[in-house]
Amino acid sequence: MRSFFLGFALSLLAGSVALAQTPPATIVIHGGAGALAPGRYSPEEEAAYKAKLTEALDIGYSVLEDGGSALDAVEAAIVLLEDSPLFNAGKGAVFTREGKNELDASIMDGASLNAGAVAGVVKVKNPIRLARAVMENSEHVMFARDGAEEFAKQQGLETVKKKYFYTDKRWRAYKEALQAEKQKSDKESAMPAGFKYGTVGAVALDKNGNLAAGTSTGGMTLKRYGRVGDSPIIGAGVYADNKSCAVSSTGHGEYFMRLTIARDICAQVEYGGRSVEDAANDVIHNRLDALGGGGGVIALGADGSYAMVFNSKGMFRAVKSESGVVEVAIYGEAAK
Amino acid sequence: MRSFFLGFALSLLAGSVALAQTPPATIVIHGGAGALAPGRYSPEEEAAYKAKLTEALDIGYSVLEDGGSALDAVEAAIVLLEDSPLFNAGKGAVFTREGKNELDASIMDGASLNAGAVAGVVKVKNPIRLARAVMENSEHVMFARDGAEEFAKQQGLETVKKKYFYTDKRWRAYKEALQAEKQKSDKESAMPAGFKYGTVGAVALDKNGNLAAGTSTGGMTLKRYGRVGDSPIIGAGVYADNKSCAVSSTGHGEYFMRLTIARDICAQVEYGGRSVEDAANDVIHNRLDALGGGGGVIALGADGSYAMVFNSKGMFRAVKSESGVVEVAIYGEAAK
Repeated sequence: MRSFFLGFALSLLAGSVALAQTPPATIVIHGGAGALAPGRYSPEEEAAYKAKLTEALDIGYSVLEDGGSALDAVEAAIVLLEDSPLFNAGKGAVFTREGKNELDASIMDGASLNAGAVAGVVKVKNPIRLARAVMENSEHVMFARDGAEEFAKQQGLETVKKKYFYTDKRWRAYKEALQAEKQKSDKESAMPAGFKYGTVGAVALDKNGNLAAGTSTGGMTLKRYGRVGDSPIIGAGVYADNKSCAVSSTGHGEYFMRLTIARDICAQVEYGGRSVEDAANDVIHNRLDALGGGGGVIALGADGSYAMVFNSKGMFRAVKSESGVVEVAIYGEAAK
Repeated sequence: MRSFFLGFALSLLAGSVALAQTPPATIVIHGGAGALAPGRYSPEEEAAYKAKLTEALDIGYSVLEDGGSALDAVEAAIVLLEDSPLFNAGKGAVFTREGKNELDASIMDGASLNAGAVAGVVKVKNPIRLARAVMENSEHVMFARDGAEEFAKQQGLETVKKKYFYTDKRWRAYKEALQAEKQKSDKESAMPAGFKYGTVGAVALDKNGNLAAGTSTGGMTLKRYGRVGDSPIIGAGVYADNKSCAVSSTGHGEYFMRLTIARDICAQVEYGGRSVEDAANDVIHNRLDALGGGGGVIALGADGSYAMVFNSKGMFRAVKSESGVVEVAIYGEAAK
């Protein structure tokens, strides 16, 4: 009988230790999902992508390691990816139908449920910084186009000439997409293979147990009519709530908006009692598949559990955790 | 023993009859939530609001009665409310900081999860029709500002001179709000009492068991920087999924975006097994309250159960169902 009580007391103790344990500081990032089959890139290109992902991962993780906030880690990682011409965000954004670069971004704080988003900015060097300024320095959540630009100016954010966002690679893709469209008349014409590359995002869990998520993109090649995709939509391209999880999405945005993918994963965790991984798998492999959409998500739970899930051939992705996990990957081989 | 089996067989039969029963065709509409205490309006004004709500309700319900789709019912009811100067949508929209009318709208089909939304249009007479055109005639879900206008033109939608949206009442409210702001310096200054009136919305369940939801608004008085509120955001101002429910929101949009209110209600129904009423109550009276936000929702389940819930003093609202329910209300007395 004594051993029973002893065992019971020990298990209570273990329980409280487990509760008191700080979950491992963790950052997960992505650089977009798409038709990324092995062979798509040369070994040198692959190395360049992995090096940049690693750099962003390390910058974000070092913020967490120093006791910084999940928000700061997410912003730092995304700024680095925006500044790289490799990804479809900030410098290196794809071109709209009119041959312009129009950028969207969003950020969310899982502790307060504060959020900020911008759609269709053309001069702000780092849209993720503008999204954060909207969250922290305005009464609003989302600003669009010229209004967002005006707010950026008022906030003193760094702006660049429109030419800054130009890259030869994206210009060629734009010209090819226009050409492909001329030769086709079906609905797919505006969406040549590979159009979905390169949205970037990050989710982080800091040492205080707070979650944050952010997403930044140049949107879809040949987009028109001031099309707004999922990246600046709270609940679609981004969501964070300490009660459940943090998510950043990448893919064919229209499907992500209709399914409110980021919120849905967190809702399945919160109300359905599912693990982050099960919820992410359900949303991508059941719901997104059922509608015929493509893309992926990174998701991170308040307990440090995470998932990197996509139904495309590959997704630029990386994770680094206090638990010792470090992974940088492109193709499907390591999909969870 | 025989009576036991007979009873069992009968209850099985009753069960299958219940399953096979078509849920009652139902439409629920709202005309905005806000500081609507008794005495806010004269008896004549109250009668005018109730008459217009009844007219919209009847138009929507007659679509359902004739075997029309939930989408058509939602659109018909909202068009009527947009055309009325009483509500903050279409004619009668509030003014932005620059003294303009900028309109947002969204619509969603619960059968297909198709959705359409527009933000910041200034010339389209019925933004809800434009949202539907985006849903049905484009590859995209959301268009903003000048791009949305261009799409409207291409679709041949009716446009009006900007002056069409002007009403004396809203212009006076705009001038008063500007004046009130000058006299105050705190954060509340841009939000005088009553700023939240009048977004309109509808949810419907048709005889085929399909759900739809729509929302239309002029947004927030004194809004600036191309502010996008919750009304055109799928998951915040609107959501519809035959698996769970249809929701249209009204209130202080920023809170509705952060909480993805419409999607959250449907997620609680889908994953948490809650009733539509319990889910709507939780979202408005627990979650929205906790953040300090104000407003309300109408929600309609696939079984015909519905809720009209708000944490403000009142909400213009009405419901009509094949089950025999008819209710038109303004103040809190009949809040479910």
